[in-house]
Amino acid sequence: MINVGVVGGTGYTGIALLRLLVNHPQVNLTQVTSRSEEGVPVAEVYPALRGLTELVFTTPGSDVLSDCDLVFFATPNGTAMEMAPALLNAGTRIIDLAADFRLKDPAVWKRWYGFEHTSTDLLSEAVYGLPEINRDQISKARLIANPGCYPTAATLGFLPLLEQGLVATGPLIADCKSGTSGAGREAKTATLFAEVSDNFKAYSVPGHRHLPEITQTLKMITGGANKDIDLTFIPHLLPIMRGIHATLYAMLGDTDCDLQKLYEQRYRDEPFVDVLPPGSHPDTRSVRGSNLCRIAVHRVKKQAIILSVIDNLEKGAAGQAVQNMNLMFGFPETTGLESVPLVP
Amino acid sequence: MINVGVVGGTGYTGIALLRLLVNHPQVNLTQVTSRSEEGVPVAEVYPALRGLTELVFTTPGSDVLSDCDLVFFATPNGTAMEMAPALLNAGTRIIDLAADFRLKDPAVWKRWYGFEHTSTDLLSEAVYGLPEINRDQISKARLIANPGCYPTAATLGFLPLLEQGLVATGPLIADCKSGTSGAGREAKTATLFAEVSDNFKAYSVPGHRHLPEITQTLKMITGGANKDIDLTFIPHLLPIMRGIHATLYAMLGDTDCDLQKLYEQRYRDEPFVDVLPPGSHPDTRSVRGSNLCRIAVHRVKKQAIILSVIDNLEKGAAGQAVQNMNLMFGFPETTGLESVPLVP
Amino acid sequence: MINVGVVGGTGYTGIALLRLLVNHPQVNLTQVTSRSEEGVPVAEVYPALRGLTELVFTTPGSDVLSDCDLVFFATPNGTAMEMAPALLNAGTRIIDLAADFRLKDPAVWKRWYGFEHTSTDLLSEAVYGLPEINRDQISKARLIANPGCYPTAATLGFLPLLEQGLVATGPLIADCKSGTSGAGREAKTATLFAEVSDNFKAYSVPGHRHLPEITQTLKMITGGANKDIDLTFIPHLLPIMRGIHATLYAMLGDTDCDLQKLYEQRYRDEPFVDVLPPGSHPDTRSVRGSNLCRIAVHRVKKQAIILSVIDNLEKGAAGQAVQNMNLMFGFPETTGLESVPLVP
Amino acid sequence: MINVGVVGGTGYTGIALLRLLVNHPQVNLTQVTSRSEEGVPVAEVYPALRGLTELVFTTPGSDVLSDCDLVFFATPNGTAMEMAPALLNAGTRIIDLAADFRLKDPAVWKRWYGFEHTSTDLLSEAVYGLPEINRDQISKARLIANPGCYPTAATLGFLPLLEQGLVATGPLIADCKSGTSGAGREAKTATLFAEVSDNFKAYSVPGHRHLPEITQTLKMITGGANKDIDLTFIPHLLPIMRGIHATLYAMLGDTDCDLQKLYEQRYRDEPFVDVLPPGSHPDTRSVRGSNLCRIAVHRVKKQAIILSVIDNLEKGAAGQAVQNMNLMFGFPETTGLESVPLVP
Repeated sequence: MINVGVVGGTGYTGIALLRLLVNHPQVNLTQVTSRSEEGVPVAEVYPALRGLTELVFTTPGSDVLSDCDLVFFATPNGTAMEMAPALLNAGTRIIDLAADFRLKDPAVWKRWYGFEHTSTDLLSEAVYGLPEINRDQISKARLIANPGCYPTAATLGFLPLLEQGLVATGPLIADCKSGTSGAGREAKTATLFAEVSDNFKAYSVPGHRHLPEITQTLKMITGGANKDIDLTFIPHLLPIMRGIHATLYAMLGDTDCDLQKLYEQRYRDEPFVDVLPPGSHPDTRSVRGSNLCRIAVHRVKKQAIILSVIDNLEKGAAGQAVQNMNLMFGFPETTGLESVPLVP
Repeated sequence: MINVGVVGGTGYTGIALLRLLVNHPQVNLTQVTSRSEEGVPVAEVYPALRGLTELVFTTPGSDVLSDCDLVFFATPNGTAMEMAPALLNAGTRIIDLAADFRLKDPAVWKRWYGFEHTSTDLLSEAVYGLPEINRDQISKARLIANPGCYPTAATLGFLPLLEQGLVATGPLIADCKSGTSGAGREAKTATLFAEVSDNFKAYSVPGHRHLPEITQTLKMITGGANKDIDLTFIPHLLPIMRGIHATLYAMLGDTDCDLQKLYEQRYRDEPFVDVLPPGSHPDTRSVRGSNLCRIAVHRVKKQAIILSVIDNLEKGAAGQAVQNMNLMFGFPETTGLESVPLVP
Repeated sequence: MINVGVVGGTGYTGIALLRLLVNHPQVNLTQVTSRSEEGVPVAEVYPALRGLTELVFTTPGSDVLSDCDLVFFATPNGTAMEMAPALLNAGTRIIDLAADFRLKDPAVWKRWYGFEHTSTDLLSEAVYGLPEINRDQISKARLIANPGCYPTAATLGFLPLLEQGLVATGPLIADCKSGTSGAGREAKTATLFAEVSDNFKAYSVPGHRHLPEITQTLKMITGGANKDIDLTFIPHLLPIMRGIHATLYAMLGDTDCDLQKLYEQRYRDEPFVDVLPPGSHPDTRSVRGSNLCRIAVHRVKKQAIILSVIDNLEKGAAGQAVQNMNLMFGFPETTGLESVPLVP
Repeated sequence: MINVGVVGGTGYTGIALLRLLVNHPQVNLTQVTSRSEEGVPVAEVYPALRGLTELVFTTPGSDVLSDCDLVFFATPNGTAMEMAPALLNAGTRIIDLAADFRLKDPAVWKRWYGFEHTSTDLLSEAVYGLPEINRDQISKARLIANPGCYPTAATLGFLPLLEQGLVATGPLIADCKSGTSGAGREAKTATLFAEVSDNFKAYSVPGHRHLPEITQTLKMITGGANKDIDLTFIPHLLPIMRGIHATLYAMLGDTDCDLQKLYEQRYRDEPFVDVLPPGSHPDTRSVRGSNLCRIAVHRVKKQAIILSVIDNLEKGAAGQAVQNMNLMFGFPETTGLESVPLVP
């Protein structure tokens, strides 16, 4: 049983996290902070949690948070980097669901996020929290950079191909589609129901912040920064609440590799990656509300076409964060993550 | 051909109005104002209008607007009452799509809208723009109070019963459901896609601003303020973009009246009210994008159950405003309102 | 640990039931039948269940089913009445999620369902499975008639008023709205996405099969068949997947009763009924995927307006069935029903 | 004024066509056929058309249809090829909205559609009805093969690149997303609301019937069958009613071409193709209910990324068919196609 705090509990990532934590058998949820809702019971903002928690939103302060064994940051970018040093010094471990510690190069950070990184000395220590590639490091880490939603879906889809060096030169393409909860709970005209419903569009074609994150990870997989990865990443906004579908295209080099078998073997022991039978088309609802990533592998002539789906708020955010917590504290990896996808 | 201005062209009512006006054969659209989008081409904010108008949003000013024969206000409540006196003095006629001139009693206004009415002298002159009851007055009016969306659907549904005095004592019930565009284009968390989608709820059960508006009209129909109307009005938020469905309940007095025939006769000559065959259940899409109100009449024992649907942005706002304009300027009443409902 | 069979596992009620049963700690799921999918693995039809069950759909036969301690029927109306006698004789208990055993009067059955009831001798034994009124009987029952979705939402909403005799003469009104999963998984044009989406309508205004079911229960609550209940029940189809919202109207007699307090006291010990604070408006998503019923109580002059929401597939079908099972076999009532509503 | 018949008026393509034809000033709609709805008024099946047509569905017969100047087939594949010869002999011209006459090679037809083509002698005469490449031929044609929805969006997007020979070797990729109306109005479980809503998936990854159609057209554009086109086409199902979004990827050869200028010049005189300003992201609703194709052109390093949106029932089916009719009979090309996209 550990004491856990959540900083920023009112966004969609925050509520998804609270939903998992209130029922987690090893978690004693002691603090949930929100500047805007200070003093308001959590269950008043989220009636779905009525009867499950008596907590009241507090104003974040590292003095109180440092009593926690673990603090999750479900905050806007830039918050965790300010509060992390003091908490780590106090012995509190951190999982940041924002982007603060994902990019290793502060210059790349500044280019994509528009302001200077203020905790650059922690960047090398921070562990990228994708258990499927960093399980051991995660278990020992003080500071976890929880991956972005698109990067999780895309990386798990490309991973076996890149690890085996099966991809020919030329761009990888990640044509990705995300549910609207990925855009956050902040009031914006662009994500109003009457704007998003019965509608579909691409966005950020010239460049999206998840591009350098995915590229950094794919380079790491292929063996270091000097291996060139040329990724085209095009995000689209889906009129659904939860779910990411990554349609991934890669030209294969000369290879007879049985891709289906490759993927099945790579993920055989992964509790949250499910490789579907040949010829499958995973739908986003098959992972709704669960921490699963489901993958289908297709080959058309010399092209691999990989379909990868996750729930952006679960394996793409809060679920993966809890998975990382389980690893960090030695709980069985699936604890608190057993919920069956909600269909229909 | 008349010169027309639109004040407040960036909300959903505004865009619906522009969509109708750019193709209206008798309208020369000369001004579209928006404080927030000044200088921006209308078609840049609404790509659906590309190629249909070269207009650029301007800042509203009565000097320029008074060159118009008619000005529509698609503004928040309180704007039209400030600008109306000067425009009317300059000979410009006005259709206000907000609530400013709907309620005759300034005390009732203040109670429901929270601030003093500043043009009380215009309240008696303003004509409630529901053509089905006020056609003659509308044609001569300088100032039209365009009805609210719920009031249009509910009033047209109750109208024949009340005109004939068929209703017993006891409350009338209007259980109404509205699409989300009725909540406006302002950024609010409550109307985000991820809040509204796959969800449904009632709101404002203790009291909604359209209650006094409907009550005032129903009293007028039944012959004056001294006739008591006891209306229960419960609005609900639908996860659809456009459409209102009013489910209306009224206990009948002792009467053998053939309700179906009554409704058919009452609306026989109305171009925008369609009484469906006996046993029907109108759906909101059957009026989507059109100025129609479709009504079905049911009787279960001594209770009349009336189903009334409109598109809240058309017959519930912009379409009805154009219908009123047509009446005011002697154009055929259906001009510019011929579009067929978009199904599916 | 009991052996459980499910007859009819491919409809929406069936899959909802399987989702609950595969994780239920006291259930050994031994049979899932489907004529149409015989021989197909359950997880192939429902990928959401991959890894959670190895079961293969079989053809139903009472010989195999009678090895079960309990059999759920998630079948079309008319199936359970055929198979029930043999199973009961073999000592197997039954929960029927269809309508077969809900109505006590076979003549009423025939009028609303269109064919003769073939197990009329079991009608008096069958217990109506609404734990909030029949908990003791349920625990001893061999045969449970699991309530309909609309009847559950409406009955729990009216219950405290009727038990206390607070309602005046005149019709009760239940204006109810249901998600589309309530219409089943059978292929019908009327429930295609392109028909239901961005659309809303009432249906079955002249009479719906749940009307006699609700009426029968409300009469029972008020003390027997001789007390007259005059209910108007109007169902509507919502463009959502899961959820029922009942908006209930009742004229009160002369009473000073504090309705809020009455409801809170009535449901204080009910694990699955949550009375919201005064002034609330429950939304359907606040119970999505959970077995909860949330209720808000409003009073406007002499009228009680009750808002009651459930998930039609959970408290309205499969969840309530599992709750009944827990009662029948002495498991803690909430076992397997702890999942937190999925928001957003 | 021409006499027009519609064979197969009850599907989504049929109703979209009727919506356009009832208001078309040059069309006298004389026949609408449907085997399943024979004798039923069109407006009863589609209440949206109440008051706009008195037509009653008839059983199709070439004797009556041959009185028409033009017959549209909005039928399943295989119907038009049976009825076309007799009608053409009688002097009636034909626009087939199904696939019967799209593929020039009957062997390719059989491979993708699974049965022998029975009017192979008409294949060479049939004109592929994409006005942007075949305007002159269309105007003289007796028999038009109206293009598929995906092929229209993809072809218009790739067209300027291919005409100018700017594409390098290697596969073109068309990652396409379609609204659910594209799957038709036939009752299928896969397109039920509760299956499609809040969900997203790819389908037919191993091969979709529109692949050979697009390939055939792209080859034609690039100068004949011997030019090799290697196209990867992946369709996805969107939880929207209307709209196709094609995200197109092409590697460019060595070229300094200003793609934006190229597209603007290519489509400058096209009434229904709108090239958006640089940096744009067209959304499907910006063409909802209209015959427009909107295109945005992006270049990322050596890759062209083209975004192309249409309404699948309009420019992707019925609207394009009416555009073809206008060309065939010498009406102004935009007649009856002026409706402004419905937003929101």
